[in-house]
Amino acid sequence: MTYCVAVAVEAGIVFCSDSRTNAGVDQISTYSKMSRFGRDGERQIVVLNSGNLATTQAVISQLQKDIDDNAVTHLLNVPSIEAAADYIGQVNIAQQAKYNQDGTAYEAHFIVGGQIQGKPPELTMVYPQGNHIKTSSDTPFLQIGESKYGKPILDRIIEPKTLLDTAAVCALVSMDSTMRSNLTVGPPIEVLIYEANSLQLQRYHRMEQDSDYLRDLKRAWDERLKEAFRQLPPLNWATMWDKLPNGENETSQ
Amino acid sequence: MTYCVAVAVEAGIVFCSDSRTNAGVDQISTYSKMSRFGRDGERQIVVLNSGNLATTQAVISQLQKDIDDNAVTHLLNVPSIEAAADYIGQVNIAQQAKYNQDGTAYEAHFIVGGQIQGKPPELTMVYPQGNHIKTSSDTPFLQIGESKYGKPILDRIIEPKTLLDTAAVCALVSMDSTMRSNLTVGPPIEVLIYEANSLQLQRYHRMEQDSDYLRDLKRAWDERLKEAFRQLPPLNWATMWDKLPNGENETSQ
Repeated sequence: MTYCVAVAVEAGIVFCSDSRTNAGVDQISTYSKMSRFGRDGERQIVVLNSGNLATTQAVISQLQKDIDDNAVTHLLNVPSIEAAADYIGQVNIAQQAKYNQDGTAYEAHFIVGGQIQGKPPELTMVYPQGNHIKTSSDTPFLQIGESKYGKPILDRIIEPKTLLDTAAVCALVSMDSTMRSNLTVGPPIEVLIYEANSLQLQRYHRMEQDSDYLRDLKRAWDERLKEAFRQLPPLNWATMWDKLPNGENETSQ
Repeated sequence: MTYCVAVAVEAGIVFCSDSRTNAGVDQISTYSKMSRFGRDGERQIVVLNSGNLATTQAVISQLQKDIDDNAVTHLLNVPSIEAAADYIGQVNIAQQAKYNQDGTAYEAHFIVGGQIQGKPPELTMVYPQGNHIKTSSDTPFLQIGESKYGKPILDRIIEPKTLLDTAAVCALVSMDSTMRSNLTVGPPIEVLIYEANSLQLQRYHRMEQDSDYLRDLKRAWDERLKEAFRQLPPLNWATMWDKLPNGENETSQ
């Protein structure tokens, strides 16, 4: 499995991805799920991927090939991030179709975000069907892969005014909760912060299994969370017990 | 969807379930997913259910019918909680088989826990296939339904020594996180605490949508969690940036 999350705040976009791939629990490998395409000062496009590894690798390779071959449409000439999402959607469909003879779907999802000169930063998610959705001020983050464990903290913390560093920490806490509860998501963890209107990608960090930072964050969050739980108001159970309803299946005597 | 969780600690067992059922977002109803069978002083068995509503209702009705008909095996004569789980597993298979003509599986999961005089408290989960698993000191809780959103807090807090009231609050926080992130899980929320060796069910509480308690817990946890997040050690991003790896698809210039 995989967990990738991207957060679009006013100050820019945070991208975070794990690197564990598995086909069965005894076939675990490490692959980066974060790809970058751009020209400093002109455009920066970051692609996160989840789903069938053969499909995601084929799609990413095709994106690069189209650039090298100077195809009619490629990531260095699309006019907008949405156009990039449309294009990646088409490449995704084409690659899945190649190997879909037996009716099995080798599906892949992509998060596509960044900025093109003259346009605001944009963040999108591309579905296996090729269509895509964007973030909004009400929904400032997108997740692909094993997204449920890490969603509650994002729901609580992230809003458009959230600072980039805070959003990055929140993405890492979300990643930590996911790794803790699901074996198929694991380090190295990659974090990339894009500062709005910088048109450059300079804030990148890759955390290995033994990363001090990842360990410290994990410990700190675990302690803080337990402390927060301990501080919850004591519940006055004594006063709140209801009479057991006499349901049809209530046979207490 | 549904979310039910049960936690087995040394002091007893906490059962918690939501009451929302949906067949499509425009067909939402409220049904209790918590059933109780027992004789005070002799045995107490609590059943939580998730899955196809027709199947779960048919199973619960059959459990009651077998008691009323004084069948060879029923919940008031099984010798252990595991035997109860086996029996419920068989009833589950039989009910699913009735309506499985078209190949569609109308599956249901059950959490079955409690205590029978002379035996220790036990907590089990029954699969649609009829088999079941038990909790252990390493895995003291079981979940059915929409279980992922609420798992991280349980993973962090629950251990065999956890007090019953604490386990109940943790189950409710887990429920709150699930309700916040998933529309198909909702109030009324039922909580039932079984104290080991009491062989009675006296600590039950049902929280409606407008429950002060549920609202206070939700607010308190939201505040504590945000505070915990704010207290995370500030990350010295400045010193930790890595050089962007020159991946095949790195075309920055």
